[in-house]
Order: sequence, then structure tokens, then C-alpha cells
Amino acid sequence: MLRYFTSGETHGKCLTAIIEGLPSGIKIDIEKINLALSKRQQGYGRGGRMLIEQDFVEILSGIRGGFTLGSPIAIKIENKDWTNWEQIMGIQTSNSSKAVLCPRPGHADLTGGMKYNHKDLRNVLERASARETAARVAVGALVRQVLEPFHIEFLSHAASIGPIVDRANWQDDGFSEKVEKSPVRFGCEQSGEEAMAYIDNIKEKGESCGGVVEVIVKGLPQGLGSYVHYDRKLDANIAFSVMSVQAIKGVEFGMGFACANIPGSQVHDEIFYENGFRRCTNHAGGIEGGMSNGEPIIVRAAMKPIPTLYTPLSTVNINDKSEQKAAVERSDICAVPACSVVVEAAVTFEIAKAFLDKFNGDCMDDVKAYYDVYMNRIKNY
Amino acid sequence: MLRYFTSGETHGKCLTAIIEGLPSGIKIDIEKINLALSKRQQGYGRGGRMLIEQDFVEILSGIRGGFTLGSPIAIKIENKDWTNWEQIMGIQTSNSSKAVLCPRPGHADLTGGMKYNHKDLRNVLERASARETAARVAVGALVRQVLEPFHIEFLSHAASIGPIVDRANWQDDGFSEKVEKSPVRFGCEQSGEEAMAYIDNIKEKGESCGGVVEVIVKGLPQGLGSYVHYDRKLDANIAFSVMSVQAIKGVEFGMGFACANIPGSQVHDEIFYENGFRRCTNHAGGIEGGMSNGEPIIVRAAMKPIPTLYTPLSTVNINDKSEQKAAVERSDICAVPACSVVVEAAVTFEIAKAFLDKFNGDCMDDVKAYYDVYMNRIKNY
Amino acid sequence: MLRYFTSGETHGKCLTAIIEGLPSGIKIDIEKINLALSKRQQGYGRGGRMLIEQDFVEILSGIRGGFTLGSPIAIKIENKDWTNWEQIMGIQTSNSSKAVLCPRPGHADLTGGMKYNHKDLRNVLERASARETAARVAVGALVRQVLEPFHIEFLSHAASIGPIVDRANWQDDGFSEKVEKSPVRFGCEQSGEEAMAYIDNIKEKGESCGGVVEVIVKGLPQGLGSYVHYDRKLDANIAFSVMSVQAIKGVEFGMGFACANIPGSQVHDEIFYENGFRRCTNHAGGIEGGMSNGEPIIVRAAMKPIPTLYTPLSTVNINDKSEQKAAVERSDICAVPACSVVVEAAVTFEIAKAFLDKFNGDCMDDVKAYYDVYMNRIKNY
Amino acid sequence: MLRYFTSGETHGKCLTAIIEGLPSGIKIDIEKINLALSKRQQGYGRGGRMLIEQDFVEILSGIRGGFTLGSPIAIKIENKDWTNWEQIMGIQTSNSSKAVLCPRPGHADLTGGMKYNHKDLRNVLERASARETAARVAVGALVRQVLEPFHIEFLSHAASIGPIVDRANWQDDGFSEKVEKSPVRFGCEQSGEEAMAYIDNIKEKGESCGGVVEVIVKGLPQGLGSYVHYDRKLDANIAFSVMSVQAIKGVEFGMGFACANIPGSQVHDEIFYENGFRRCTNHAGGIEGGMSNGEPIIVRAAMKPIPTLYTPLSTVNINDKSEQKAAVERSDICAVPACSVVVEAAVTFEIAKAFLDKFNGDCMDDVKAYYDVYMNRIKNY
Repeated sequence: MLRYFTSGETHGKCLTAIIEGLPSGIKIDIEKINLALSKRQQGYGRGGRMLIEQDFVEILSGIRGGFTLGSPIAIKIENKDWTNWEQIMGIQTSNSSKAVLCPRPGHADLTGGMKYNHKDLRNVLERASARETAARVAVGALVRQVLEPFHIEFLSHAASIGPIVDRANWQDDGFSEKVEKSPVRFGCEQSGEEAMAYIDNIKEKGESCGGVVEVIVKGLPQGLGSYVHYDRKLDANIAFSVMSVQAIKGVEFGMGFACANIPGSQVHDEIFYENGFRRCTNHAGGIEGGMSNGEPIIVRAAMKPIPTLYTPLSTVNINDKSEQKAAVERSDICAVPACSVVVEAAVTFEIAKAFLDKFNGDCMDDVKAYYDVYMNRIKNY
Repeated sequence: MLRYFTSGETHGKCLTAIIEGLPSGIKIDIEKINLALSKRQQGYGRGGRMLIEQDFVEILSGIRGGFTLGSPIAIKIENKDWTNWEQIMGIQTSNSSKAVLCPRPGHADLTGGMKYNHKDLRNVLERASARETAARVAVGALVRQVLEPFHIEFLSHAASIGPIVDRANWQDDGFSEKVEKSPVRFGCEQSGEEAMAYIDNIKEKGESCGGVVEVIVKGLPQGLGSYVHYDRKLDANIAFSVMSVQAIKGVEFGMGFACANIPGSQVHDEIFYENGFRRCTNHAGGIEGGMSNGEPIIVRAAMKPIPTLYTPLSTVNINDKSEQKAAVERSDICAVPACSVVVEAAVTFEIAKAFLDKFNGDCMDDVKAYYDVYMNRIKNY
Repeated sequence: MLRYFTSGETHGKCLTAIIEGLPSGIKIDIEKINLALSKRQQGYGRGGRMLIEQDFVEILSGIRGGFTLGSPIAIKIENKDWTNWEQIMGIQTSNSSKAVLCPRPGHADLTGGMKYNHKDLRNVLERASARETAARVAVGALVRQVLEPFHIEFLSHAASIGPIVDRANWQDDGFSEKVEKSPVRFGCEQSGEEAMAYIDNIKEKGESCGGVVEVIVKGLPQGLGSYVHYDRKLDANIAFSVMSVQAIKGVEFGMGFACANIPGSQVHDEIFYENGFRRCTNHAGGIEGGMSNGEPIIVRAAMKPIPTLYTPLSTVNINDKSEQKAAVERSDICAVPACSVVVEAAVTFEIAKAFLDKFNGDCMDDVKAYYDVYMNRIKNY
Repeated sequence: MLRYFTSGETHGKCLTAIIEGLPSGIKIDIEKINLALSKRQQGYGRGGRMLIEQDFVEILSGIRGGFTLGSPIAIKIENKDWTNWEQIMGIQTSNSSKAVLCPRPGHADLTGGMKYNHKDLRNVLERASARETAARVAVGALVRQVLEPFHIEFLSHAASIGPIVDRANWQDDGFSEKVEKSPVRFGCEQSGEEAMAYIDNIKEKGESCGGVVEVIVKGLPQGLGSYVHYDRKLDANIAFSVMSVQAIKGVEFGMGFACANIPGSQVHDEIFYENGFRRCTNHAGGIEGGMSNGEPIIVRAAMKPIPTLYTPLSTVNINDKSEQKAAVERSDICAVPACSVVVEAAVTFEIAKAFLDKFNGDCMDDVKAYYDVYMNRIKNY
């Protein structure tokens, strides 16, 4: 069973992760991981830190000569800023020069401080920070490589930023290339310009914004996940993974919330047969009965606005209970493009996990052979 | 760690569940479980089966003299219709008189048949059926009883049915009582009438409909769940549980998808202090940083329309691949009110699990004492 | 991933279990489960209850027409004595006519009472009782049926009872048949007579005895379990399962503790090649590096003497703290033969789990094809 | 729930581990971890590598200013020899100058090669190596620090080496100090001399040896673990953890296998009362009914002889199937003293896990308060 832990504070030495459960013999291209890390750092509306700290992954174990060994893989992403924080965040001794006493609304600060009895809220925010998502992106970009021989493809983009909706659709020609070129990960260039103008506008107001991100997974076989027990449903597992991403407040598949409003005949995807079972629509977003049904999986997630505002919100000093303005720890205005990359990684992990649950060979040769066995069987169903 | 399995087919002998991890000494009122089961069976728009088969729970183990023993609890809900199905669904021998060969769009039928190599799709639909949710409702109503001494309250209702929105709000006076009296679990009587008229209308057209359900949890302490690791976040776990409910296509907390459109200052809930930390708003839906923040938890879920239509959709016979109309196995028009009860149970389980993770006494005396320890500590934070 | 829960008290209505994770299409013979249950009830030295209560399994779900559906399987074993205990062990009301106030040394009674705050120790012993092993035996006999097409065979026997050692060896001709005929599950008839005489002798003295049981698993492919992470080692998982059986105080593989005393050259099994890699010895008991190595797996477990003595041990009344003699709740003198059947079931579950982790097809056709893929690959290694 | 992953190859860059689930506010002394690592490297009979490579732990995250944050803790132990192996074990490119083609009997080599389809068995042995236990020792020494405020103490020693038994007993005066001074971790100096002479003797013969190690845990409260479900039993979990240590072939508690031979009255520990429930004996090794009963926990484990012999065993070249002598990769004669330190760590982890399952506060203040609540309650039981 594929599984992983992440670790690391935003101004600590580094982020790390250990990934357990990959078969041996996967060809690993480290640059693909670095590319994903780089995408996570980009996007119109990011603050200054992204510039000083380009992330690179270091593989500590589990890979030899470019191939997985089957052993656990440890990865590390250095925090380049560590030298500036070593006194503050030191393992054995630390100082309180950057102590945070005013919990920021919308963050883990206040509840985290109460729960773990931290009097310096830095002890909370260092871990609760979205910096952690760099580790998750690296994990996603690593485990995706087990899926590549099977032509499973992932695409992520920003579907909307604040009120600005991307007028292009992922099925449009050249969509993916346009997204990769767009500073807001939009497929429609003009919509993208509007989104950037919007970001500029709210920045001036000391505001922040959120948006909706979308991930599409193409090329999955039918039957990942299962209906037989609630905790094996693929959509449930993806929703879990996506909702666990910082700032996500909603997750939906296919038509999602929209299907609640319209009659059944306009929602369900009829079944046809022409050299195999076929659909003409994909309102279900590729999942029926908790299983991939062979159509592209379409997941959307709502990202709330960055909680750290340059016009900060009201809060309270935890020591003297005085009314204060929230600390301004970091300073993105909009992280929706980056969030799409993170959500893609979160989805990727669950897909890889479900894939390896089903085609659980110890080495890639076995994974491929198991896959072929299954695909040949269902082709003749 | 609280955990459970369910088992059972829709026309099999019975549904069962085993729940492991409850402390000893919880006073159990079985009628509360039966009441929840009864609510699940009600609602305007249900088909005929609900009338013939009123569900009752039987406790098989783990409770003695009205109190939990700390041992696993097994529960059973009989399928009253079993005598009519015994030949068809027999354990040792069965007949194919009710074989299903035409997979219904929107159901697990086709993919389930391929995955498990079933040639009679009844073997899929019997387990994939929403009948299974009766077991989950019973589990929810059982484990909720560990929370009652702590004044944690749950409320579920239908927020909309098809395009008809309940104009009342859960914070309105008498909302809960009105919901319990309403055949559509609406708080506004007039909206409810409109919803029923809508159901009548689509029924005439051979259609079905979905809707949005909402669950509110009041009285939770701060700090259930955790930000420290992605898989410990309370919202992720609730989203997992809710998305695993049959027919759910979207889950959101608080403002949910709406918060993606508006600036940060209108989204985040400012912090005040007056005999404790306070909020004036709850746009976050009670969860920040993956933890309960002391405000009511507000979860909404989108239910797709019932896939079984009286004007059935196109499909294909799995044997001869001929074009067919989908089988009409069961016949609700609208199950949104019932769905709200199921989602409530799904949320309840995760709340109880998170609560017992945090206040993990072996007996209720210890749970209460641990709770008091924590509440006293954070009162003075 | 194969998993199960058990539930039930020794004088409650019934025992139940839910097994999740079996593929579809396994042919299930219920009589094989009943046969295993019957073996568990036999053996020289058992008390009276075994006679009144022959166990039969009832399948509640997950099987149709003699084949698994892929859905969770629920099983039930009635406690035939329930009518006599219904007032005492009632779910909603119970009486204290059989209250246990004097904890029995060697049992869970005292610590269980303290932990769960039970003032009637019956609330502990009802669940801690070895009666629960009936459910585990049924689970083992059920899941074994997924292994049968692969010619994986299990053998369990009593290696010693008290100081009396079975002089036969599992590799002797006709060993298995002799064990099944022996009231003490010995392979040497004369040793068996001595064991029975020993049991008679200690019975007269008001004593009880334990012994050593051995389970052999033949026909496993190389490579179940893994060395890559400590929690995936097959021996660790088997040891876990076996040590969790009531009254087990030690577990060993192959030479076990004996290999600690002798030089390495006499312990390790040299490797040869003749139409495949071969061994001439099996001191390792079939497991190297946490993986099955193709040789028979040999597990031995030490069972302590039955703690309930007819000449009872000293204890204390939990209410008034007065010195007392321990209650005599049930009355086996020796349960070693039965224990071998239970340990076999405990081992079987872990083998089936490891097997299905490796050949994780959704239906038996896929499991078989995956198995063939792997066996063909390693044949040419 | 306390949990951890380890990662790393024996000649790779480093070992790492991530530990998740520790409360905040534990005072961490890194030198205690280094001391445990140092003990693991010592012992009469070790080969040359131990000298070149003194292990030190580096904390990468989760600790600030000497206290745990509640966040996951990542640790790293460098392999000092890495510069010599960088070409051979390189992540992106590697060479085969140290390829292993002849699987060593008693190791994971052969089965691991088949399972993961490795043609250079170095890909197996690098991870299967006992080098990995350094990470487990560090994890044990770290998590132990949550137990220190509760006066829970651990002691590990070698009970026998080959046929030489330590004539001292852990209850003897000054036992622990003598063990720490003894190169073989014996409590009796003279026995220790005999053990060293034995090691010298078998070394001359090109042999290796194993032994029995023992771990004692003092100061545990009653009620860790539980009888209510098989997988919650403390002894089962400890057996799992211990059996997963490289080279362990048997695990027993208290009298262990010896109790299988003698009558019940000589095995079970009678119960008395004098300012609390008391025992005069501890044959059970501190565990009854799967729970700690308040007496010291006593675990023994059998370590097989080191499989790598200087007079190597017969094996087969995996390429040409020619008969060969096994490769001599590393060269301890006896690692029993080190093994006792590893087994202690394996036991420690499970104790800490069970302790935190029961007293699951988020911060040490809560853990302590929960502990006091429970101890006060059971004091008056």
C-alpha cells in the first residue's frame, strides 16, 4: 500500500518525506520533480519568498542508478533561508525574536496554540504553513512516474480566480500548453489578463483572493477504487487528499454541486457500445460507484483567499488579550495557480495508490503484466 | 481509534456492522438508533420499499444492561423482504430469475461488473445500493451517544431540492423542529411545499432529482483534528466520510465554493476576546487549519439525482451488447431528505472518532475527566 | 487489504465477524468452516461446555450461490447457551446473579476491570474469554479458501502437552492423518497416550497444563512479505497474529530459540540449484528477510496452562479487598489441541493477507493470472 | 497514534526516519539518542565498520529549542562511508563494481532478488541489512523521552551468547551498571568472560553465533493494550515489533516457552492486596489479557547467528547457476549485545505507542494530567 509522511517547518532546515510502497524498477527522472516544484512556486500574485528560494529535491534513499529499488524513498527539500532563521528556529536552542502572539484569522494559529499549548504561535504556523505543500508536490511528482508507462496523464489549471472565470475549457485544443504559459494557469489568454488585472486591483486594496482549481486525469482503466466498502471509494479518497490541502474549502467531481439542481436525465452518462463500452458525456467526472469508470476524472476544489492580508484583520494578543491587528507573516495575494499544482499532486498520490492497490506487482515488470492481464480481461467483458 | 465495518446486500438477509473502539460505560438508548433509521426511511419522494420495511437495529454484542462494555459492538438490521429473495440471493444456491444484464448509468453496475467479473450485475448493485447507508446511519446514531454528555449536537436538513432552495436558515428560531416535521426536511414550510410540488412535477416526467444537504455540529471543543499531518485534518476526514456516501458529488465547509469568489477580508473570521476568544462570523464553517475552532461545523454536500429513472436511460446488454433501456430496480424520485440523515451519520462518525482520539479514555469516567482537563486548560489560554 | 473485526461475548447472543477484502469468485464450502469449528471444540482435556454447544457458522452476507461477491462477508456463530444467560447478559437490562468479584490470576480480569472501570468482572471475562477464538477459527477457515486453488496447505498439531513431547515429526508418513485422529493432535500414538495420561493425572490434582503447538504451511511461493519496511515482514505479522491468541506466551519460527545456541554454519540453509533454487534444510522455518523463501513455514507457539484451576489460586475481592480463591468460571484442563487449531487460523489469516497483498486481483480469475505471471517470471530468475 | 517510517540503504547517503504523533512539549536530549546509537555499535565480536562510522543523529524538523513541537520529527543518520560508495550507489548513475551475484543463505538476498527482479543482489542487501536498525534505535531513544517523566525505565541485556548463559539476573543489585560496562552486555562478569572466549573460539573457526536478548520495562501503569480486540493486545504488538528486527527468530514473554511444560499453579501469578493489588511473582512477564498488569514487562528474543560466515556457505550464482561460496559482505562474529539495544528500541516504540494511545494529550501537560486522572482512579479501584 502506497503511503507517505511529510515533515518540516517553513523556516526550519528542510522539508522531508518518506514514501513507502513503490515497486522496484520505476525509472525516475528527478528533473520532473523539480519542474513540479518550480510550477508550485510560480504564478501571478505570489510574494517575495518564491524568488529567493527555488526548490530542488534531493533524493536521500530508495533510488539507485535512476531506478527505484522497492525500498522506501526519502526526499529532502532545503529551506534556502535557513541560515537567517537558524537562531530563531534552532533545534536545541532558539530565540523568540520572531515570536508571534497575535493569531491570524483563517489560519491554524489560535486553535493550534490552544491545542498544543504553544505560547509562541510561530510553533504552530511553521508547520501549518502552505510551505508543507512543496513536500506533497514532490511526492506527487515522484509517484506519478509509476503511472507514466500506462499513459495516465494529469492536467491542472485554475478554473477561476476570484470572480474571474477562465473561458477556455480543458478539452479545447492546446489548452494544456496555454495553461503552462499562463502566469495564472488559465487556458484563455484574455481571461488570464483579466485575472491578473483583478489580482493587481485587490493587491492595491490590501486584499487577497482565492479561486477554483481543476485537475483532470486521463487514461485511467475502469475499476480503480471500489464500491464494496465505504473507505475504498476512489472519490472519497481523492476528496480526503484534496481537502487536506491548506486553504481548500470544497471539493467536487464532474458536475459537482451543479448536478444537485437539474433532473436526472441531464446528469447521468448513458452507456453505448462501439468496440467497447462508451459514453458520450462525462457529467460524473469519471467516477461512478466509487470507481474510475474509464472517463477522465475531473476534480475541482475551492481555495479560500490567502488569510494573511496586508490590511490585516482584527485579532487578539494571546498574552494580554488586547485587541490587535493580525501579524503579516508572508505575503502572497493570490496562490490559486500554485494551488492547482498542489491539488494535482494530492490527486496524483491517490491515483497512484489506487493503481498500485489494483496492480500490486513488486517490480514494474509485474505491475505491467498485471495491468495487461486485467485490461485484456475487461476488453472482452 | 474508533473504526467500523459494514456488510450486507440490499436483498440479502441483513445488514451488519461492527464498531470497535468505544469506551465502556456509555449509556446506550437503542430507540435513538431506531429513530435515526426511521428518519432515513422517510421523506417526500421515496418509493414503495420504505413502507414495507421499517428498519430496526438489533444489538448482537458489546452492550450489557444498557451500557457499552468497551468490547466491539455488533449490530444487525434485518431485510424484511428476505423471504421473497431467499431463492434468488441464497448463500449456497441462488437462481438468476432477477438477473440484471443492463447496467444503469450513474450506478456502479458496469464498472463493478467488469472489475469483479460479475455476469449478473445484481452481484454489484446488491452491495453498491444505498441500502448500505442504513448500517451507516445506525453506526452514526450509536457512536453519537458518546458525545451526548458533552452537549455536542447535530442537525441535518435539506438545503435545496433540485432548484428549490430552503429559504429558512439553520440559525432561525425553531428551525430544527420544523425540519423534523417537514416531509422534505426544510425549515421553511412554504419552500417545502414548493419542493414537494417540484418532486411531483418531475415524477410525472419520469425524472428524478438531487439536492444539497447540510449538517451542523454544535458544541465541539477547539482542537479536534490537527494541522501537523495532512491525514489528521478534521475537514479532510469529514470530506472522506461524506464523499463515500452513495450519490454525493461535492462537499464543502462553511462558505465553501462561494469563498473562492470574494476578497479575503470578507471571508476570514476575525478574532475577539470577551470571556474567551470569540468570533462574530463563521465563514470557515468551524474549521481552520484542519481543526475544529469552536464555532459550529457546517458541512454541505451535493447529492446527484437518483440514477434510476422511470423514463430509463440508454444502456447496453452486457452479453449481446444490444442497445437497451436501463433496468428500473428501485424507485425513489428524490432521496435528499434521507440523504441528509445519512450525511449527518457520516459526519457524526468522524466527529466521534476525532473526539475519542483526543479524549481517549477507556471508560466514560476517564473520557469526561480528560475532557475537563483540556477544557480547563484552554479556558485559561 | 484483507482485514477483519470480531465481536461477541462468551455468554452473549453470538459471535460475529466481518471480513473485508476477499476477491469475488472464490468458491466457498461452508462445511469446511464448520469442520474447523468442530476441531476447535475437540481435544482431550476439555470441559463440559464443548458438548452442549457445537458451533456452526451462519453466513449473513457477501456470498451468493456458493461464491464470494467481493463484498464484505459477515459471519455469525450462535451461543447455544444464550437462553440460559439472557437475563444475566441482556442488552438492555441485565442482572448481577453471576457477578464476578474475584479476579482470576492469569486472566484479563483484574487489569481489565481497572482499565474499563468494571465492577462486575464478568464484563471483562465475557470478551477476554477464549470463546472469541471460535470467530477467528471461522475467519481462518473462510479466507483459506482463497488459497486452495494454489495448493497451499496448512497443518497444525500439538508438539507437546506439559512435559510430554510428541515423538513424531510433521514430515513423517501419514502424520497429518494421525493428528486428525488423535484426541491430543499428536502424530505419535504412544506419545499421545502418555499425554492423555498426563492430563488425567494433573486433573486429579486440580491442575491445568499448557503445551507447544506447531503450524506448518506448505506450497507458498517465494516472496510473500517484504524486507523493505519493518512492518511488512511476514514473520512479524504472523508473530503478531499468533501472540494475540489467548494464552500464547511465545512464538518462534524454524529452529527458533534453539538457533541462538549453535554456530552459524549449522543454522543457515545453504542454497543449491537443480531445476530451480533448492534447499536441503529448513532451519529458517521458511522465512528469510521477512519473506517466504519457498520452504514450508514452520511456526511454533507456547500456550500457558489454563489459568482457571479447580484448586483455585489466591486472589482478592475487588470490593472489600478480602483474600479469596479465584472463581472457577469454566473448566478445561488442557486446551492445547484446540489451541493448535486456533493458531493455525491466526497464521492462515496472515498468509492469506500477504498472498492477496501480492496477487491482489479483484476476482479469482485475476488472482490466478497474477499468480501465474509471477511464478513464470521467477521460474526463469 | 504514534507511527514512523524508516528509510535508507547501508551504503547509501544516510538513514532517515519520520516520527509522527508525539505530543508537543517533550524535552528532547539529543545526546540520549546518540548514546543509544553508540551502544548499538558496540559489543564484543563486531567487525571493522563499527570503528569507522560512529553514528550521530541529526534532527531535521519537529523540534525547536529543545522541545517537541507536536509536528512530525525527521531524523537523519549519515553513512560516513558514503564518499567511498557514491559511484556505486549513486542515485542517478551507479556502477556495478560491487555487484553481488551469489545470494547469502540466511539473508533476504535470493528471495528479495526474485521478488523485486533485481539482478544485482546489492539492491536487496543494501536495504535488508541490519544497518537499518540504527534508525530504529534512534526512533526508540527519541520516543522514550515522552515516557521519562512517568518513571518508566528500560533495561536491555544479552541473556545468552551461543551456549553461554549470563548467570546474573536483572533483579540482582547493580545489574544494569554491570551490563553497561560489559562488552557482551552480561550482568555476571565471569559469564561475560566465558562469552568472549566463546566468540574468540568460533571466530577462529570462521563461524558466527547468536544468542538470546532480554528487555525489561519497569514502571508501566496497568492497562496499556487491551483484550477487547485481537489487534490491540500489547504483547501482540510488541511481538510484531521485535520479530521485525533483523535476525530475530523467536519472541517470548515472562516464562515464555518454559510455561508450556509445567502445571498451572506454578505459572499464574496470584493476586494479593496491600495498599493496592500486588503480585509476588511475575511469571506472566507483566502482561495478562493483552494488557500491562503493573509488573515489569519481560520480553526475550532469540537472535540467530550472523548469516555471513568467514567460512562461507554454499550458494549459487544467480546468472550462470554455478555453485559458489556466499559473498562475505560484512563481518561481525556476534552482534547479540547490539541486538539487545535494537530490541529494546523496538519494545520502546510499542510501549510509547500504547502509552500515548491511552494518555493521548496533545501536549505534555495534557498527557501528564490524563495520566494522573487515570492513576488516581485506579488507585481507588
